[in-house]
Order: sequence, then structure tokens, then C-alpha cells
Amino acid sequence: MELIKGNDIAATIIAELKAEVAAISGRKPCLALVRVGDDPASVSYVKKKEKTAAEIGVESRVILPPVDISQAELEKLIDDLNADETVDGILVQSPLPKPLDELAIFRRVSPAKDVDGFHTLNLGKLAQEDATGFASCTPAGIMELLGRSDVDLKGKHVVVLGRSLIVGKPIALLALQKKAGANGTVTICHSATKDLPSITRLADVLIAAIGRAHFVTADMVKEGAVVIDVGINRIPDASRKSGYRLVGDVDFDNVAPKTAQITPVPGGVGPMTVAMLMKNTVKARQQGTAA
Amino acid sequence: MELIKGNDIAATIIAELKAEVAAISGRKPCLALVRVGDDPASVSYVKKKEKTAAEIGVESRVILPPVDISQAELEKLIDDLNADETVDGILVQSPLPKPLDELAIFRRVSPAKDVDGFHTLNLGKLAQEDATGFASCTPAGIMELLGRSDVDLKGKHVVVLGRSLIVGKPIALLALQKKAGANGTVTICHSATKDLPSITRLADVLIAAIGRAHFVTADMVKEGAVVIDVGINRIPDASRKSGYRLVGDVDFDNVAPKTAQITPVPGGVGPMTVAMLMKNTVKARQQGTAA
Repeated sequence: MELIKGNDIAATIIAELKAEVAAISGRKPCLALVRVGDDPASVSYVKKKEKTAAEIGVESRVILPPVDISQAELEKLIDDLNADETVDGILVQSPLPKPLDELAIFRRVSPAKDVDGFHTLNLGKLAQEDATGFASCTPAGIMELLGRSDVDLKGKHVVVLGRSLIVGKPIALLALQKKAGANGTVTICHSATKDLPSITRLADVLIAAIGRAHFVTADMVKEGAVVIDVGINRIPDASRKSGYRLVGDVDFDNVAPKTAQITPVPGGVGPMTVAMLMKNTVKARQQGTAA
Repeated sequence: MELIKGNDIAATIIAELKAEVAAISGRKPCLALVRVGDDPASVSYVKKKEKTAAEIGVESRVILPPVDISQAELEKLIDDLNADETVDGILVQSPLPKPLDELAIFRRVSPAKDVDGFHTLNLGKLAQEDATGFASCTPAGIMELLGRSDVDLKGKHVVVLGRSLIVGKPIALLALQKKAGANGTVTICHSATKDLPSITRLADVLIAAIGRAHFVTADMVKEGAVVIDVGINRIPDASRKSGYRLVGDVDFDNVAPKTAQITPVPGGVGPMTVAMLMKNTVKARQQGTAA
């Protein structure tokens, strides 16, 4: 069994991006980070993104509208960022406070600046294998993890647990693409799937993205499979100061010995998401509004 | 074994649409049919669409630009149709003559009038389960065939052969949706899939859309499966005046006895496509440009 070390791979990508940004003549890429309200997780995510941006040489512009901003005002703010030629990428930190319509805001972001890859048009481009689009960061990160761990999906059976718009569907579309590294046979399972273990046991590559701690047990995994664990779940842990610890969707201790390669949680998929956000931002700068 | 009779189901839908159109007060729905060049198959498809539109009470407006129309001129024509408030749906008959960029033309059509469901945005909406979008006609027709034959996909294993943008990917996304009738576990196979029969034999519902005559043989199908044959292939037949006959992707004679339900070719999926084009056109009229 070999660990797929997301921290190391993310660090490599960040170093590559730093070199790429250094080679850009003129204006450096700029990412607008819009955060509404003071949700502690959101505060910490935005900080992490700012810090990584600074490391790469990407300018970040943090925008903190008042928590009671109206839908119309927030849309106007997005419109202004769309029109601002010095802004390449726009990220609206999820979740937005309740009365706001998050999907409408995500769709308001210009597709050419949608570095989160949440816009309808970018999802369509993923299906169309149009490389000018932006793939959402977690699935894009999974493809990088696999590619840089010498896992070629061609002809492999890739089983995806979960059909979310942020992970399940886009990773299925990416794994299915005709390009090198992809070309997998893809099965998507979810809450309505019957006899799930009989399907997950078919997987050469199993991608778990359902958000349930330790859901994937050893009996569900084929000997020699590659397992990608997207889950980040809190479980109570009295031995920690915080009172909890983070675990994945996979029962790592029992599953890992059966696998050829597996991602840990934390330190697997997680660190890739911010790296891919930066990669999309640099791509947006290089591509301009042509997309 | 029971035949899924596409002709009958399409006729039912056409009758439903006729009643729906009769109930529309004011302007009737209008479909613009753009055909460039005289490809005999295109001529016959457009005629069929005109005829079905007339039957339903949908106005059709056939536009026949010169075969040497430039990309810019054709785009201008599309822009005019997009702006024309008396046009609800726009169909550009494929294939366009060679120098024209078909994908760019499909993307030029306003998403709100894209009754063929080929626009990137409508593909994205399919993934997002946004019902304001237009699903492409063949996959939408397959869902109608299944629903009206009492095949509920919930928890069933749906295996799709083929990953095209017109059939394979959209039918996978539709079968996967959370709505009633869907909720299938979906596997997508294609040219790079290894040991294909072992996967197709898992299918409770097998959808063949690869365009190879008689590709799916009896050993590839589980006893009691539902088989949907999207293929329309010409094979030589000296006994016919034309010298050929149409067959599906499925070796019907040998596969049918094993199945619970199966579509014939012709008369299965084929007739549904035009019916769903009309359904999309009526939806576009009802929905307006709000989509």
C-alpha cells in the first residue's frame, strides 16, 4: 500500500504555479475573494486561500460585504467584479447567509472568471470536453492526484460514490473524458443504489464523496484498488483538545491494507482544492475573457 | 418479452401536445428550422419535423440559406432569430456543410430557444437538474419511453453504451437525477472499456448508443433486462429495393427473447426524437425567454 500524499502534490503544483506567475509579464493574476458574514469555517478558508495566493504571487482582493447585504446589492457587486479588467477570478465563499440565493450568485459570476467552476456553462463545458472551461476544484484536484501518482484511468472501472454537483458529477465527467489519463469506465452510485458493496467491489478506482464518516468498509473494496477519499467528517474524540477529529468517508485503518494506493484524511484531497483554485486563477489570467 | 412501441408512445405525446397547443391563447408556438444545403437525409428530417409541427399546431418557419453561406452570415441569421419574439425554438439541422463551425453555431442559438438541447448551458442545466433547461431530444425521448412503459429506474443499474454528447452523456445525467422515475445507478461504457460483456450483464436497463450494427449480442444481456436500442445502422440487404435495411445496435432476434422489454429498430427510440423536439418547442413557448 502506498499513500497518495496530497500535501506533497499540492506543494509541487503551487511551486509550478509560482514559476508560471513569475514568467507572466505585466499584471499578475488577481483573485477576488468575496465573503459575506463571519462563519468561522469561511473565515479560515478565505485566509488559507489568501495565504496560498500570496505564496504564488497571485494578488488577492478580499471583499467583505455587510452580512445583511441584499441579493440585488450582491449581484451588483459581482457585476462590478465581472466588469473589472484587473480581476481574473472571482470566488464567492460558500455558504452564503440564508436569505441570499447562492445558486443565482454563482451563476452571476462571469463564466470566464468562474475559477470555482460552479457556473452552469462551465459544467456544460466539462461534459463537452471544452478545455477553455473551469472544472470545479475538488474533482480537478483528484485528477491531478491520480495523474501524478501514475494512475492512468484508461479502461479502468472508476466507481464514484455520490452525485453532488461539486464532486460526484464533475469527477464522473472528467474520468470519462477522451483525453490522456482519463478514458475510464465510470459508475455513479448514490443513496438510492441497491447492493452498493457489490458495485464498489468492481472498482479499480473508488472515489468516495458522500460525507459519511467511515462509510466505506474493507468488504466494499477490491484487493489492489486505488481509493480516493473526498470526505471530511468530524467525529467526537475526547483525546483531542478540540473534542473532535477529522476522518474521511473511508474506514482508512481497515481499508488501506487492501489497496494499492489510497489518500489519507486529512492531507489527501483537501490540500488539492486550494491548489486547483490557484491553477484556475492563473489559467483565467492567461486565457483572458476569451473563454 | 414486451415490445416498447415508440411509434405509439410518440403518437400519444403528439396528441397531448396538440391539446396543450390548442389551449394556448394568443400566438401559437413557432419553430424555426434552418437547413443549409441539400443533404438528402437532412431534407427528409426537416420535412418530417415540419409535418409533425403542423399536426400539433406548431408553426414552422423553414429557412434555407445558400449552401455557401459564411460563418458570419449564418451567425447573423441566428442572432436575428434569437431576437425575433415570434420565434420560440430554433433548430439548425446537422450536419452543416464542412467549412462551417457547427459547435459555434449551436452555441450561438439562445439557450432559451435551444430546443435541440445542444447548447453548453442546457447541458450544464441537465447536470444541475434545473428543469428550465432543454434536454436533448433523444435522451429525453428515452426517459419518456421508460416512464410510459412503467420502468422506474430507481435503484436500478442503468448501463449506457456510448459517451456522445447527443445521447450517452445526457441520458446518463437524466437517469441519475433525483426526480421520480430516475434515481438510477449509472455506468457509462465506451470504446476504452475493458471486458464489456461483464459490465453490460450487470444492467437492469441497457441503453445502446454506439452506432455499430448488432453490437450487443445475447451473451451481453442479463435475463429479464430492459433494452433500449438507440442505434440506426444501415446494413446491406439485397431483398430490399433500396439495397439496405435499418438495424439497431442490438442483435434484436437473439437478444429480445431474454429481455423483459425492448425497443425495436425502427419504431423504437427514433420516433421519440421528433416528438421531444415538439415538446421542447411548446415548453419554450410556455416558458418564454425567462429560462
